[in-house]
Amino acid sequence: MKISKVEAIPFAIPYRKPLRFASGEVTAAEHVLVRVHTDSGLVGIAEAPPRPFTYGETQASIRAVVDGIFAPQIIGLSPLEREVMHTRLNRTVGNPTAKSALDMAVWDLIGQSLGVSVTDLIGGYTDRMRVSHMVGFAPPGEMVAEAERIRGLYGITTFKVKVGRRPIELDIEVCKALRAGLGDGVELYIDGNRGWTPSESARALRAMEDLDLTFAEELCPADDVLGRRWLVSQSRIPIFADESVSRPGEVTRELLAGAANGVSIKTARTGFTYSQRVLHLCEGLGVEVVMGNQIDGQIGSLCSAAFGAAFELTSRRPAELSNFLDMSDDLLSEPLQITGGTLHVREGAGLAIEIDEDKLAHYRQDG
Amino acid sequence: MKISKVEAIPFAIPYRKPLRFASGEVTAAEHVLVRVHTDSGLVGIAEAPPRPFTYGETQASIRAVVDGIFAPQIIGLSPLEREVMHTRLNRTVGNPTAKSALDMAVWDLIGQSLGVSVTDLIGGYTDRMRVSHMVGFAPPGEMVAEAERIRGLYGITTFKVKVGRRPIELDIEVCKALRAGLGDGVELYIDGNRGWTPSESARALRAMEDLDLTFAEELCPADDVLGRRWLVSQSRIPIFADESVSRPGEVTRELLAGAANGVSIKTARTGFTYSQRVLHLCEGLGVEVVMGNQIDGQIGSLCSAAFGAAFELTSRRPAELSNFLDMSDDLLSEPLQITGGTLHVREGAGLAIEIDEDKLAHYRQDG
Repeated sequence: MKISKVEAIPFAIPYRKPLRFASGEVTAAEHVLVRVHTDSGLVGIAEAPPRPFTYGETQASIRAVVDGIFAPQIIGLSPLEREVMHTRLNRTVGNPTAKSALDMAVWDLIGQSLGVSVTDLIGGYTDRMRVSHMVGFAPPGEMVAEAERIRGLYGITTFKVKVGRRPIELDIEVCKALRAGLGDGVELYIDGNRGWTPSESARALRAMEDLDLTFAEELCPADDVLGRRWLVSQSRIPIFADESVSRPGEVTRELLAGAANGVSIKTARTGFTYSQRVLHLCEGLGVEVVMGNQIDGQIGSLCSAAFGAAFELTSRRPAELSNFLDMSDDLLSEPLQITGGTLHVREGAGLAIEIDEDKLAHYRQDG
Repeated sequence: MKISKVEAIPFAIPYRKPLRFASGEVTAAEHVLVRVHTDSGLVGIAEAPPRPFTYGETQASIRAVVDGIFAPQIIGLSPLEREVMHTRLNRTVGNPTAKSALDMAVWDLIGQSLGVSVTDLIGGYTDRMRVSHMVGFAPPGEMVAEAERIRGLYGITTFKVKVGRRPIELDIEVCKALRAGLGDGVELYIDGNRGWTPSESARALRAMEDLDLTFAEELCPADDVLGRRWLVSQSRIPIFADESVSRPGEVTRELLAGAANGVSIKTARTGFTYSQRVLHLCEGLGVEVVMGNQIDGQIGSLCSAAFGAAFELTSRRPAELSNFLDMSDDLLSEPLQITGGTLHVREGAGLAIEIDEDKLAHYRQDG
């Protein structure tokens, strides 16, 4: 079985309401559907989410690099020749979500051709992931109400709170309201998306010391090199790195520099192949991980869950898998369901992704 | 498909002549054949080489821990549930070759059941490995003659020279004779098996400075903690760790302590699952690796080659795959062949190991 054709299809699905973060705002999921075709008729599927504020990629750049550079490099390869594929893809710098979508689509092909789920292929630990939900910026009362709604609807009891605004009191107030409103039975952690300075981060953490936060993610930029090391050196809760650790070499640098205590793994940027490498690197270094969310659609969320469920270390804590709830629709024939705070990995070969072709025709932007 | 039975069969095959190292001597390969049976009739195969001087395991301890502890823990699991299996095996400390043989036999089952080679399953980089040959202790002239014989017979042009004797001049003389006798077209590196002190190691390296050694392995014990760091800090050729890095946590400790610059990966002690972790850890840390040999028989050599060929990083340099040449016989129906300095991975599903049952009946020690 050889790879015969690669499609990179831009599509846009509106969010129910605009998503706001310290690093920017998005109003629609403008992603790229990647389909890797083979001469046997099997088709591997994944999606690439362009994140210009994080990785510099755009919908147009993903299409261009897939069509113009990557597709010719991998057409003719067997899906099993992953190491050969990555040797070729890696000649091109950056473009993490484009490369990762190809990687995951190829793993989907491997699973389909062998009749085994990707989760079982790469580790086979469990068939589900507990879910952590991200609460976006809003007045404190609204954020508590939203978290309560999510808990009631989906049984989710772990919440990631977006912080990083100025003055820091805005976010401190929100976190206090969430702990008071949701009670002690709920797990809370925060994500600053590089919005604060190191000293603001430290002040905010001190002010939230009684809130029993599990960890804090990317409060200040990794390029605040010494400031961030100082922050990590004196923080009483672990600091996780996210957008600053988008490949193994960066993981090593940040961890060995003392600039982080934990790592967020996102299949959207490291696929399945390099997510394994990041995971094994962290495991070998004795560092905790969390499965993060690149504001993934349902296809991306399925990929992330498929990876997380494969390993014991990634299954230890709830994964960020619910961002798709903010989208008004999606491309899957059978939408994802979160119940009892849990997302099940799809049974079936590969990633078991089935696209609703009518929806794709409706949302695709190249027609 | 579920695991239904596990066999741990002791066998002994004489060496053509006794193998001598700084850390001990062996006269026969007294290994344990591990066969993992399933309710589908498929059988996964690997071998465990007891190395009491290195890991504390014996043939009897491997049989006891497999039969008494590990078999009951994995019977009933699907071979795909590797992460569940390792969570259980890891409750028992140590016993690396016993655990690894089970891991590799289970990967053999996965490959067989899916109709894919293990090499393709885990990476799919290439189908062969260049071979490095180990030259054991002997007078200089004999060692040169032996290397020439191996080069002539098998086309091997990379040699690992056992050192670590006292006085160090014995080994310096050998290495000089090998370089002079074999010429510049041959790659040479040395392995001390912890035989020297740090200062002896440094003196020997200085005396061999003109011999263009690629690297030096485990010249002094890892527990010579500060001495070894000093040695590594001032050595002009890289120092590789071998028996001091038998699991990911040890790799991290030795590398971060500055006690090694490279790592030997041996499937005999880390199987396929943990060898991937060690590899990805080293890759993420930017550290070179070599596929090492645990004085493996043909089954173990096949496993090592299957892993090495799967990845670009492990394929960069010749792997130590020729120790089986010292054995007077083996259990495979079709013996391994090294030609043109290369060992090909077996085509076929899983590890494609077929045991000659007559030979097993002859060499097994529990009959």
